[in-house]
Amino acid sequence: MLSKNQIKLISSLQQKKHRFANQLFFAEGVKVIQELVKSNFELEHLYTTNEDFTDIASNKRSVISENELNKISALSTPNTCLALFKIPLESKIIESGLVVALDSIRDPGNLGTILRLCDWFGIHQLICSKETVDIYNPKVVQATMGSIARVNVNYIDLDAFLKKTKLPVFGTFMDSENIYKTTLPQEGIIVMGNEANGISENIEKLITKRLTIPRFGDLQITESLNVATATAIILSEFRRQN
Amino acid sequence: MLSKNQIKLISSLQQKKHRFANQLFFAEGVKVIQELVKSNFELEHLYTTNEDFTDIASNKRSVISENELNKISALSTPNTCLALFKIPLESKIIESGLVVALDSIRDPGNLGTILRLCDWFGIHQLICSKETVDIYNPKVVQATMGSIARVNVNYIDLDAFLKKTKLPVFGTFMDSENIYKTTLPQEGIIVMGNEANGISENIEKLITKRLTIPRFGDLQITESLNVATATAIILSEFRRQN
Repeated sequence: MLSKNQIKLISSLQQKKHRFANQLFFAEGVKVIQELVKSNFELEHLYTTNEDFTDIASNKRSVISENELNKISALSTPNTCLALFKIPLESKIIESGLVVALDSIRDPGNLGTILRLCDWFGIHQLICSKETVDIYNPKVVQATMGSIARVNVNYIDLDAFLKKTKLPVFGTFMDSENIYKTTLPQEGIIVMGNEANGISENIEKLITKRLTIPRFGDLQITESLNVATATAIILSEFRRQN
Repeated sequence: MLSKNQIKLISSLQQKKHRFANQLFFAEGVKVIQELVKSNFELEHLYTTNEDFTDIASNKRSVISENELNKISALSTPNTCLALFKIPLESKIIESGLVVALDSIRDPGNLGTILRLCDWFGIHQLICSKETVDIYNPKVVQATMGSIARVNVNYIDLDAFLKKTKLPVFGTFMDSENIYKTTLPQEGIIVMGNEANGISENIEKLITKRLTIPRFGDLQITESLNVATATAIILSEFRRQN
């Protein structure tokens, strides 16, 4: 049985200010919750409509009705379980190897997909500008499919960070060097820009190596690639070469 | 001023059966509508809240209020315009060069993103199994960003088609040949499978060349890539080599 206060708390966590105030976020579905439980995320409480997760201590696990789950879920078709986790402290930035940096990514689905790509391509560090959508947004957590547990994510002043880094800084633009014909290093920061505006002006000045994903279709068209698919192509090419 | 019947008709087009019965679909936003208008799509009627598209004949253009647009829009934040188009007859399948074939893709966003990728990589033919989400679904039309006008799309019995084709048939699986180390041809059909289940059993039997996108992260994890990002990587690699 869920109290009104619990419903109110969990629903409020759909908003960033309440996640921040309570230092809590939630995840839904067996797979994502399992990934978070077995990683370093500290479980606050699990709510489930059936007999799963019986290995979780009884004071941290409640069986609720489907109707109750509907009230706390952020999904249009709720799964069978929802879990609250503590937001961990940010770890130190791993400033080596390949690092992906996001300049104002606003769409939760894009951030989740990019995190999943980092995980696939063995990238351990994702850096987000302060304007980037919150990684603990329920839609992001859902889209990451559990990879949120395996990639280090930091929100920082991207401009200040790029000014100081000794790593090469890559960015993609429409008319630069063909990525397929460029020798790519094993270390570097790959900056991906905002969905509508691309890489912002002040960040563009800090790019040390400009790349282009060539277009093979009608060259009259100026439409760009979606940021998540562009990230997929760039990471694939860096890893193929190294 | 919109009549009740017009509102009812346009709203009904969010469902496939009504699109099919009326042979109409709709698109929203200046950019997508412009792309469709300048291509071969036949405009049925344009509804706009402002002074754009003044080059369209007055009997095909109505200025409506924002309130009216809200009633017919499929978007949570409506744009400034919505246009009805006739669903064109399917063209003959272009069975040469690179062709992408979808085996039961269900998510509209994924289909839209894949169509946009086809456009970017100069792929002129997209083949969809009958179970794949309808290309004229408003969410697909929106996600294509206009590239729906530049890629030929056919819905067919995929199994029967692949049994007859003379082109090599590619599919990606978890443990096959590393795509980066495979010499890829300029012609072939690239099959992408369903979001949850991958390529179906009967289609898998018709794959003549099995490929794998190698995972560089923790190899214990069995999580796969999202189908749209996997398509991005595969098309990028085919085009890089050719």
